[in-house]
Amino acid sequence: MPSNTLGNHFTVSSFGESHGKCIGAIIDGCPAGLHLSEADVQPLLDLRKPGQSIITTQRKETDTVEILSGVFKGFTTGAPICMIIWNKDSDSRSYDEFTSKPRPGHADYTGFLKYGGFNDFRGSGRFSGRLTATMVMGGAVALKILKNYLNIEIISYTKSIGNITMESVEMSFDTISKNRYLNEVRCPDHGTAARMKDLILSARRDGDSLGGIIECIVRGVPVGLGEPIFESIESEISRGIFSIPAVKGLEFGSGFKGSTMKGSENNDSFVIDKSTGNIITETNKSGGILGGITDGMPIVFRVAFKPAASISRPQKTVNLKDMTESQLIVTGRHDPCVVPRAPPVVDSIAAIILLDCCFKSNLMPRVIH
Amino acid sequence: MPSNTLGNHFTVSSFGESHGKCIGAIIDGCPAGLHLSEADVQPLLDLRKPGQSIITTQRKETDTVEILSGVFKGFTTGAPICMIIWNKDSDSRSYDEFTSKPRPGHADYTGFLKYGGFNDFRGSGRFSGRLTATMVMGGAVALKILKNYLNIEIISYTKSIGNITMESVEMSFDTISKNRYLNEVRCPDHGTAARMKDLILSARRDGDSLGGIIECIVRGVPVGLGEPIFESIESEISRGIFSIPAVKGLEFGSGFKGSTMKGSENNDSFVIDKSTGNIITETNKSGGILGGITDGMPIVFRVAFKPAASISRPQKTVNLKDMTESQLIVTGRHDPCVVPRAPPVVDSIAAIILLDCCFKSNLMPRVIH
Amino acid sequence: MPSNTLGNHFTVSSFGESHGKCIGAIIDGCPAGLHLSEADVQPLLDLRKPGQSIITTQRKETDTVEILSGVFKGFTTGAPICMIIWNKDSDSRSYDEFTSKPRPGHADYTGFLKYGGFNDFRGSGRFSGRLTATMVMGGAVALKILKNYLNIEIISYTKSIGNITMESVEMSFDTISKNRYLNEVRCPDHGTAARMKDLILSARRDGDSLGGIIECIVRGVPVGLGEPIFESIESEISRGIFSIPAVKGLEFGSGFKGSTMKGSENNDSFVIDKSTGNIITETNKSGGILGGITDGMPIVFRVAFKPAASISRPQKTVNLKDMTESQLIVTGRHDPCVVPRAPPVVDSIAAIILLDCCFKSNLMPRVIH
Amino acid sequence: MPSNTLGNHFTVSSFGESHGKCIGAIIDGCPAGLHLSEADVQPLLDLRKPGQSIITTQRKETDTVEILSGVFKGFTTGAPICMIIWNKDSDSRSYDEFTSKPRPGHADYTGFLKYGGFNDFRGSGRFSGRLTATMVMGGAVALKILKNYLNIEIISYTKSIGNITMESVEMSFDTISKNRYLNEVRCPDHGTAARMKDLILSARRDGDSLGGIIECIVRGVPVGLGEPIFESIESEISRGIFSIPAVKGLEFGSGFKGSTMKGSENNDSFVIDKSTGNIITETNKSGGILGGITDGMPIVFRVAFKPAASISRPQKTVNLKDMTESQLIVTGRHDPCVVPRAPPVVDSIAAIILLDCCFKSNLMPRVIH
Repeated sequence: MPSNTLGNHFTVSSFGESHGKCIGAIIDGCPAGLHLSEADVQPLLDLRKPGQSIITTQRKETDTVEILSGVFKGFTTGAPICMIIWNKDSDSRSYDEFTSKPRPGHADYTGFLKYGGFNDFRGSGRFSGRLTATMVMGGAVALKILKNYLNIEIISYTKSIGNITMESVEMSFDTISKNRYLNEVRCPDHGTAARMKDLILSARRDGDSLGGIIECIVRGVPVGLGEPIFESIESEISRGIFSIPAVKGLEFGSGFKGSTMKGSENNDSFVIDKSTGNIITETNKSGGILGGITDGMPIVFRVAFKPAASISRPQKTVNLKDMTESQLIVTGRHDPCVVPRAPPVVDSIAAIILLDCCFKSNLMPRVIH
Repeated sequence: MPSNTLGNHFTVSSFGESHGKCIGAIIDGCPAGLHLSEADVQPLLDLRKPGQSIITTQRKETDTVEILSGVFKGFTTGAPICMIIWNKDSDSRSYDEFTSKPRPGHADYTGFLKYGGFNDFRGSGRFSGRLTATMVMGGAVALKILKNYLNIEIISYTKSIGNITMESVEMSFDTISKNRYLNEVRCPDHGTAARMKDLILSARRDGDSLGGIIECIVRGVPVGLGEPIFESIESEISRGIFSIPAVKGLEFGSGFKGSTMKGSENNDSFVIDKSTGNIITETNKSGGILGGITDGMPIVFRVAFKPAASISRPQKTVNLKDMTESQLIVTGRHDPCVVPRAPPVVDSIAAIILLDCCFKSNLMPRVIH
Repeated sequence: MPSNTLGNHFTVSSFGESHGKCIGAIIDGCPAGLHLSEADVQPLLDLRKPGQSIITTQRKETDTVEILSGVFKGFTTGAPICMIIWNKDSDSRSYDEFTSKPRPGHADYTGFLKYGGFNDFRGSGRFSGRLTATMVMGGAVALKILKNYLNIEIISYTKSIGNITMESVEMSFDTISKNRYLNEVRCPDHGTAARMKDLILSARRDGDSLGGIIECIVRGVPVGLGEPIFESIESEISRGIFSIPAVKGLEFGSGFKGSTMKGSENNDSFVIDKSTGNIITETNKSGGILGGITDGMPIVFRVAFKPAASISRPQKTVNLKDMTESQLIVTGRHDPCVVPRAPPVVDSIAAIILLDCCFKSNLMPRVIH
Repeated sequence: MPSNTLGNHFTVSSFGESHGKCIGAIIDGCPAGLHLSEADVQPLLDLRKPGQSIITTQRKETDTVEILSGVFKGFTTGAPICMIIWNKDSDSRSYDEFTSKPRPGHADYTGFLKYGGFNDFRGSGRFSGRLTATMVMGGAVALKILKNYLNIEIISYTKSIGNITMESVEMSFDTISKNRYLNEVRCPDHGTAARMKDLILSARRDGDSLGGIIECIVRGVPVGLGEPIFESIESEISRGIFSIPAVKGLEFGSGFKGSTMKGSENNDSFVIDKSTGNIITETNKSGGILGGITDGMPIVFRVAFKPAASISRPQKTVNLKDMTESQLIVTGRHDPCVVPRAPPVVDSIAAIILLDCCFKSNLMPRVIH
């Protein structure tokens, strides 16, 4: 089934494989008249690309993006924008083994069965985290439109790695925005970041892996995004977020902890913002969403990533060729923890979804003048 | 925007308002040849209906369902099935106040702004938990098809209320299935249920409310449901689940806790099931899903419900008419905790989504013979 | 498969059967704030209803519409609008025969096979022309919005019945609009209408039936509707028009005749409209559409209806029970020609599609103030 | 709005511009396990490509296709298939003029207004007939699947050019299939073809252009394709066909002529096929479709193409820069008649739509073994 397109009014379609010729995206529904070039996309791709630090996979890709269509004289035309990255540094040697011995916790097994063994397994093919670069292609365009034309800004950052969590100190949106990319872990609190990095290096040494939590905050959200009943803003964001590989949990505002609170604790009182005269809420337990509709406060959500499946410790698996229980030691180049590379991806998904919702609510014109 | 339809291949469209003439659903894409009558739907509606116990709202509705179309001589015809419930016991007196003084934590404020004040606010209109009955209409049909033709069974039950959680004792699917509806709280462990009930009654006495967690387990899932990249089975389930009012969190398998584990702890080893000779996993941290595709193990997910917003304690709000800060004491009939009424709703959403995915994977014919 | 919904941004979903309890429609995506009551819909339904003249079927239905949801205090709320007509005068006696002896030219055969014999065959069930009333429910709402808020008007009228065609005399939009409903045939030229009526009565006497052509003209079309490549305005209109039973042809502007012209004859020169200073075309061979996008001139298209399939002359068919060739004489109440009842239906489909396109082009807000 | 994707279950998305870097298509929803290479696509592209004979535009493109993704070890993987053609011989000199002086009958004017002047006008950009090559990319895949796995064959051929029509002699499906590509005009009757060719050459000498009619016949259609009410097989085919540039009319079976017939003439009697024992119809006035559903007889439809808009005779237009009436003489390389290049395009659209319908009806598995 076609299932490689995200969005309805502003859509991003992903194609390509981790070790194929290329990976790419088609962005359709982008307004005409947006000033756009590769320079708008490359920086966000660079923040996601592999091999950029000691805590990521050592695959070396420049991830240089090229725009093939939809831009003319420096501006978008209203036609589909095709972007592409040519794969350079693929090493497919280790993957043959996984077709008979599926990695525990990975899509080897389900992919093999679903596609009858025809799926491109090299570098995990379509299941590779590498495909999140195609999300970033669309996300970079969406983020630019949101920021420049709707005054909406999105920041995701590493909230926890394993059992190390950045405490909820009072850190402003601007500080998080400024600090989050200053270390490899993408945690805006540098002390915590240093401990997280040590933990990741330790896990790598042990041939093991880690998970973590990304928090995303969206500022400047207009009131009224989200379409109940079945296209609540939580529904829309969730369908995008759960498309990111390794995501297993999502909560908005007070989330799971909120389920243990009383109404009197969890309800956010409406008050007047003295400086603007606007209605705001005193707290933001709702994560900026009431009844599936944005209330003007920042949208806040947290995303749980499981530990990466590819670990080099011996694991039990089944050999599909002879249906015997077997042992597997994963070799090859893998991230010990995908979380540090995920903030640009979460930003991108959030941006694509929110821009899509802005189009639904008629907040964006079809031509930018 | 049209946003009242869930599903793509098997769809459920919701209409009606809490205090309007009726609520109803259109089920489209149901195969022809399914034996169907109101008797297939009423029992599930009865488990959700208001006024059934001391811990729910005291609104009295029989919620008697009537099938208006799509069934002929006792069998579905392949045409859209329209079902309807006529509202009987609505009391709209208290709601006028909320149009000027929006309830904290509720959709009064966002609904008012989004729809320009035209939304039917009586009984919260479209935002009412009452509309979950229209989800149940579709869910009852989906559950019947899943069970009878695909051998898939779904059970949701109350895992926690406030800070009382049912411990993860070893309780079998069949036991949960049998026990969960034997008490008002819908928790299959009766001791825990009794404590939960007390807690709810206590909150009601305090004019307060509670949240909680529903766990859902799906048994008999075929391998291969879910369509990466953007229609992973988690994406599909999440978009449905986050349409249920008051849901603020969702996790699959080990979920948020899994994000603190190491790969060696969270990966599920593949082994041979001695009794069947099939491949299974030794544990189920993945919640039955690898790479966005079902692996044949039970799907397991947990849903966090926030405490109900309508509490009778004084709360701060803003009077929209004169933009002054004001106080609100909510009167009227409200659930102190929506969780006990939610299991049929979670079952329904899960069933609609999973049946939709089965159609995508060509597992269900368009005519049942 | 779900296939009973037309439109993407403004949608109309049809349900019900010709001889079932009711027929109805759900209109979703209607802006909040539209003044709406049954009085806006009934007149258009009356123009379509059966039994209104000597040249239609003699089934007697008042087709009284009732709005069940989505309207509050006289205005639309932004929620789905459910409308319903309860069936009164159904006589299903003659239809049993068609389940074994399918009518030539009718859907008896294909419906039986597609739905495994489970389809409601009474009065042709979902295939009945009666279901066009559900299109009119949505059309009436769309026509009101188009006229009142976008200044777009649509008129369909009978252009030909059998081999009698209204000559292309110079008749203004306003005259057609005024005259078309003054006779039973819905042809604005009363002389031609009288001859058409005689032809229909003659066919009925012969136990035979007739087809014809409806022309539709849309005035006040903004420049820029239609979304190439695959949602050209012709594509959008055609998908709606070919959903009307008995339609077998559609052409825009010069259409089939245009295919015999030279470019120099068929191209419409651009000129300045002296009275307004705007660009117009001197002729309108394109039917108001260039490159799949409206150019501001009236949209003009013609729809070919085949002669009604149900005729009382002996016809050859096959008895499905014993697979023998057999004879059939159709009894019951049928229209000798559906064309005179079709203009409100063509108006409705055109209105739904065009309003949908206006939403796509951001021309309509989501709340009407 | 995103509008560059055709189909729901098997989708073809088009990107690229006539004079941009490339044109391409993404095919999503293709089953895994299909043997596929460029050799399956190139021959159909060659039949469409420009510069292949004296009666087409003299732009020289090899239209060499390259598959970038979705194929592994010679078989499709179930992932999106991206195909691309790099543009070689573009000459954009003449197009600047059309941005101020729009060509009558062309999309210059509507494209300019819709996209605010940002559209890529070189070679008509997205409005170019060149983009039909992207339809052919998807069509070639669909045609292969239809033929090899569903035994469905599609042939389109030139029925008329200007006022020269191939008489409805008795020519078998196989003869048409064999003969249609033996001459430049794509008319299987070589005598008629020769006269058509002369007419086209004559029009070119006159600086004029011609239109014509393509007939399409589909053999081997299973009973039951098409989903009433709003996804009738005519609706589905029409939305695709009207996406082809220059198409202004479409009729099925007896079509417009059928609207002048009586029911007794137009109904197709059901009889038993003596050779197979199956039910067939004696005639095929319905074009193989009853009630919007295929009846197992060949689908037959005809497509009216207008004469090409770009003619070198002087035409009246308006200068958009100073809003004065002006004269235009179109230079550059243009087809005097697009019809001879259209059969592969009509075949492709029909194939994409029909395969999509086969998936809807569960006739094709998701993996080919």
